[in-house]
Amino acid sequence: MTNVFVIGLGLIGGSFALDIKSVYGEAKIYGIDTNEDHLNQAVKLGLIDSKAAMEDLSDAEVVIVAVPVNTSLKLLPEVLDLVGDDAVVFDAGSTKSLICEAVATHPKRRNFLAAHPIAGTEFSGPSAALEGLYRNKVNIICEVEKTAFKLQEKVLKLFTDIGMRIRYMDPGAHDRHIAYVSHLSHISSFMLGKTVIEKEKNERDIFDMAGSGFESTVRLAKSSPAMWAPIFEQNRANVTETLEEYIANLQQFLDLMKKGEFDAIYHEMENTNRIREILKGINVPAS
Amino acid sequence: MTNVFVIGLGLIGGSFALDIKSVYGEAKIYGIDTNEDHLNQAVKLGLIDSKAAMEDLSDAEVVIVAVPVNTSLKLLPEVLDLVGDDAVVFDAGSTKSLICEAVATHPKRRNFLAAHPIAGTEFSGPSAALEGLYRNKVNIICEVEKTAFKLQEKVLKLFTDIGMRIRYMDPGAHDRHIAYVSHLSHISSFMLGKTVIEKEKNERDIFDMAGSGFESTVRLAKSSPAMWAPIFEQNRANVTETLEEYIANLQQFLDLMKKGEFDAIYHEMENTNRIREILKGINVPAS
Repeated sequence: MTNVFVIGLGLIGGSFALDIKSVYGEAKIYGIDTNEDHLNQAVKLGLIDSKAAMEDLSDAEVVIVAVPVNTSLKLLPEVLDLVGDDAVVFDAGSTKSLICEAVATHPKRRNFLAAHPIAGTEFSGPSAALEGLYRNKVNIICEVEKTAFKLQEKVLKLFTDIGMRIRYMDPGAHDRHIAYVSHLSHISSFMLGKTVIEKEKNERDIFDMAGSGFESTVRLAKSSPAMWAPIFEQNRANVTETLEEYIANLQQFLDLMKKGEFDAIYHEMENTNRIREILKGINVPAS
Repeated sequence: MTNVFVIGLGLIGGSFALDIKSVYGEAKIYGIDTNEDHLNQAVKLGLIDSKAAMEDLSDAEVVIVAVPVNTSLKLLPEVLDLVGDDAVVFDAGSTKSLICEAVATHPKRRNFLAAHPIAGTEFSGPSAALEGLYRNKVNIICEVEKTAFKLQEKVLKLFTDIGMRIRYMDPGAHDRHIAYVSHLSHISSFMLGKTVIEKEKNERDIFDMAGSGFESTVRLAKSSPAMWAPIFEQNRANVTETLEEYIANLQQFLDLMKKGEFDAIYHEMENTNRIREILKGINVPAS
């Protein structure tokens, strides 16, 4: 691994930079970001060795595109235009269908690999980057067969070298699954935060009682709107469907509450306790 | 502190036992539980020194009632009947109005203190007990003026000795606030778990993608139905109101999604990001 370019030096891009540096000591990491302040922070924090510009991409061996998904749609074809024939470009976006479409007919499609590392925190920007963020995490790869075999090999080795497990999925299936397991969680959390903030005018009361479950369910409401609004837009059909089902389940719970059917409520909760077994083995913070 | 009785040896009672033992080395901790298996586990785990029976309560200096809130309504008057004139009894329930009502006219009302320690995890039973669970946590005390002054002093010292901060609230205000900040979070989490389990027939897909936000928002869906169904029943009016507001906010978000108003969605999320400042200082797990 020699010249690695990271475009977008936030939590995701910055953490890739740190992990690659720690595994491939000889790699030179270049950073590109339209936010000059983030770029300077990335140098200061030691995420990257040097700042770079788009025209430098001709020297890249690996390019990581870690920007909001709306930006990716425009940026990925431009990056592919600029890189050499042996370079591999991968993204890290939370939607895959439109991103795969955006490069589908590009002459350098075989230099691109569509990825979604299932890792992150609710924080953003270069200071949110964490070494080891990707260790023991899953990376979902879409349309792997459309990437040149040698480049697949190189980038999959990179992923396993930094400790990731690989799963393959088609872009449509990815977007349907992730709507339930990730995108809906974010909406549920944002609207929970909104409901509580609207009602609890005294912030001290929120703070003092937040230990009773609120702080973990509302954690995702700290997430960046600049990242999430484009995700909801690109995965609109799936997210709308999951949200409708979630509202219907909440409405049914409300109806049971109103009718005083607490045995039925007990059984609803008991059935959902099955999530314990499903998530066993995932490292869940205790409180 | 000499004879401390803990009734209910789950997460909450067991953790009180551990913290009291660590602060008051000389205290003898007795355990009472209708579940014989839990009682034996509590001895084995070192939570209690000895098993005891209800008739032994006449020797108690402090009695902690840590049982589901429906059980508390019947049990608290019985415990007060049995204790001596200098004993202090406190509960730890997540509802306060009905519990305060249940003992309001009891001749030994002044031997009771209504408490709600804002601490816990999604786990239950004696093996869930944690030393230090209450450190730096808030304990909400209701109707403190109805407890004999000397007994207030003793039990508030106990709470501060194990590291808790005290807040005073009337039972009605407690139940209204906690409906938003705790009870609604649990419903939101249970219904999120239900929605995902119903849709995702392949549990492997849930597991592999859960790192993307799901595991923290669904954590509370592991909670015990035996504890939570009675809480929802006792706080029915407040919980129903909060749930209606939550559903209305989700419905509004869904309408924005359907109309494609992603700028408005951006601003919804940006406004709710204020939760970052509100929760600052609370120890939130990073991922």
